[in-house]
Amino acid sequence: MSLDAAILTALRLPKTGAVSGAELSQKLGVSRAAIWARVEELRSLGYDIEASPHLGYRLVSVPDVLHADDLHSRLPGVKVVGRDIRVFQETTSTNDVVEKLARDGVKEGVVVFAESQTRGRGRLGRKWISPEKRGLWFSVLLRPNLRPQAATQLTVAAATALARAISTQTNLSPEIKWPNDILIKGKKVAGILTELSAELDQVKYLILGIGVDVNLNASEFPPEVRKLATSLKIEAGRTINRAELAAAVLEELDTDYARICAGQFETLADEWEERCTTIGHNVVIRVGDRSIQGRAESLDSDGALLIRTQHGRLERIIGGDVSVEK
Amino acid sequence: MSLDAAILTALRLPKTGAVSGAELSQKLGVSRAAIWARVEELRSLGYDIEASPHLGYRLVSVPDVLHADDLHSRLPGVKVVGRDIRVFQETTSTNDVVEKLARDGVKEGVVVFAESQTRGRGRLGRKWISPEKRGLWFSVLLRPNLRPQAATQLTVAAATALARAISTQTNLSPEIKWPNDILIKGKKVAGILTELSAELDQVKYLILGIGVDVNLNASEFPPEVRKLATSLKIEAGRTINRAELAAAVLEELDTDYARICAGQFETLADEWEERCTTIGHNVVIRVGDRSIQGRAESLDSDGALLIRTQHGRLERIIGGDVSVEK
Repeated sequence: MSLDAAILTALRLPKTGAVSGAELSQKLGVSRAAIWARVEELRSLGYDIEASPHLGYRLVSVPDVLHADDLHSRLPGVKVVGRDIRVFQETTSTNDVVEKLARDGVKEGVVVFAESQTRGRGRLGRKWISPEKRGLWFSVLLRPNLRPQAATQLTVAAATALARAISTQTNLSPEIKWPNDILIKGKKVAGILTELSAELDQVKYLILGIGVDVNLNASEFPPEVRKLATSLKIEAGRTINRAELAAAVLEELDTDYARICAGQFETLADEWEERCTTIGHNVVIRVGDRSIQGRAESLDSDGALLIRTQHGRLERIIGGDVSVEK
Repeated sequence: MSLDAAILTALRLPKTGAVSGAELSQKLGVSRAAIWARVEELRSLGYDIEASPHLGYRLVSVPDVLHADDLHSRLPGVKVVGRDIRVFQETTSTNDVVEKLARDGVKEGVVVFAESQTRGRGRLGRKWISPEKRGLWFSVLLRPNLRPQAATQLTVAAATALARAISTQTNLSPEIKWPNDILIKGKKVAGILTELSAELDQVKYLILGIGVDVNLNASEFPPEVRKLATSLKIEAGRTINRAELAAAVLEELDTDYARICAGQFETLADEWEERCTTIGHNVVIRVGDRSIQGRAESLDSDGALLIRTQHGRLERIIGGDVSVEK
């Protein structure tokens, strides 16, 4: 952990009150002057840190920016997801950045955030708008020991982690639409793009690209999606702290990923099914040129959706465009 | 087609006899001097081209090199596979080169050969030895409209194309060992490494890496694989023309790929099953830590192997290490 992250962690510990320079200096093993210099630097980034001669330092407020050290300081306990965090002001697509890291052999768990993306992508090359500082646009590199067929497990994990984090951070009730969307009152608020590199029977690496429309105003959505999409701010009626939400999502995802690695996908699938609006409904799923109609019954052990067709057959669906018939 | 490729094509047409400079000049729309210059260049590459004042040019022999123009001149009819051919003297792995091309948006069908590979790869990161000019080490870029689950179809296509081409070029009887090996009398002579980049429900691109041990001598295999591997030269008792074999494989693969794109995988699967030593036998398949035992029954419509286990259950296997129990 960097010194900045260590300072922010220490300042967060006493929920009220302050930490003295002497205490910080001792705890972190650096001089009080060094602490002071870093506090000045953090202030220049927008962190409001009060310094009182008697009480010491107190973190009053944090700016609405994503800052790797800040995110680190919020995630002391993660084992894999988020142990390496990198923040870009602007990228083409965070999935592209992570793909380059993956090919360079970077360890799994690295997370790349961008404050804005110039070529954010949704599924099948669709565009994903990513205006500056209005959302969370990030990608996670994983190297699970799975067959490509089981990669859907990770989309399921990401959806569950997202739903859980949004729920605790906003008090909204997110629903999961299989396989990769998070909805609030039927409108899309977040999406997951899973991309993978594989041999026939082994994933080499997998990238979870996650986009959350956090603080967009209605006018910031393109007109053609305004009826279908929303933001957490619109739904909650208040601005949501992006750094807190980001940390919550990564923490939940780290937990879910550990469950999958331990072969406990079933427990995850149960939670997923509870939050899922697709299960139990009649759906039409378009997969390429094909269209499959039936009742969505459950997830199988690979994370595929099981559809009972009109003819009574059970079909396994890996991905596609789902419409729920109400 | 380049001028060199056009000249070689024209020289190949009259199976015996020669083509006059005047005829070539008219047919190809360039001066006789230009033809002469290119013939000189081809001679410098090792092509033995006789020039007689009365009869014209005659192709006497070709050198044992892979030359993109030469390969092109042998493949006038291909639609996708081989319409763009690139030959490197040395690469790390031809799959790596093709992956870069794929990411740069190069069209499907490009084939990259290397005279030698410094880091040739087999399945699951295993090493593939690729000594200079002793084999065919090449990779093909495809962009099929398939789900990742159906990618095995292309391994099956490559195996079938390889077996067919080896059979016609050498009179040997190649057998297919599911999913990705070609054997002669039980010894491995060629392998296929299928790598893909995908979203959950759509392949973005797929790379077929193919290695054929053509003219290796027994002493050129590492001691630990000598009992398991062989070359076409060892089995046929003569040196095999690599360019002819390469052209034959690409032509067959172009045909097989067209069948898959037309949804005619079933016809391919039938041919494959006839050539396959795995089908109809009791096998043990290791997939990661798991081991599955049973009788290999057939291929399903995605190219997966169907195994009837001891308990009577039918299991679908995408890939793994197969041992056949004799």
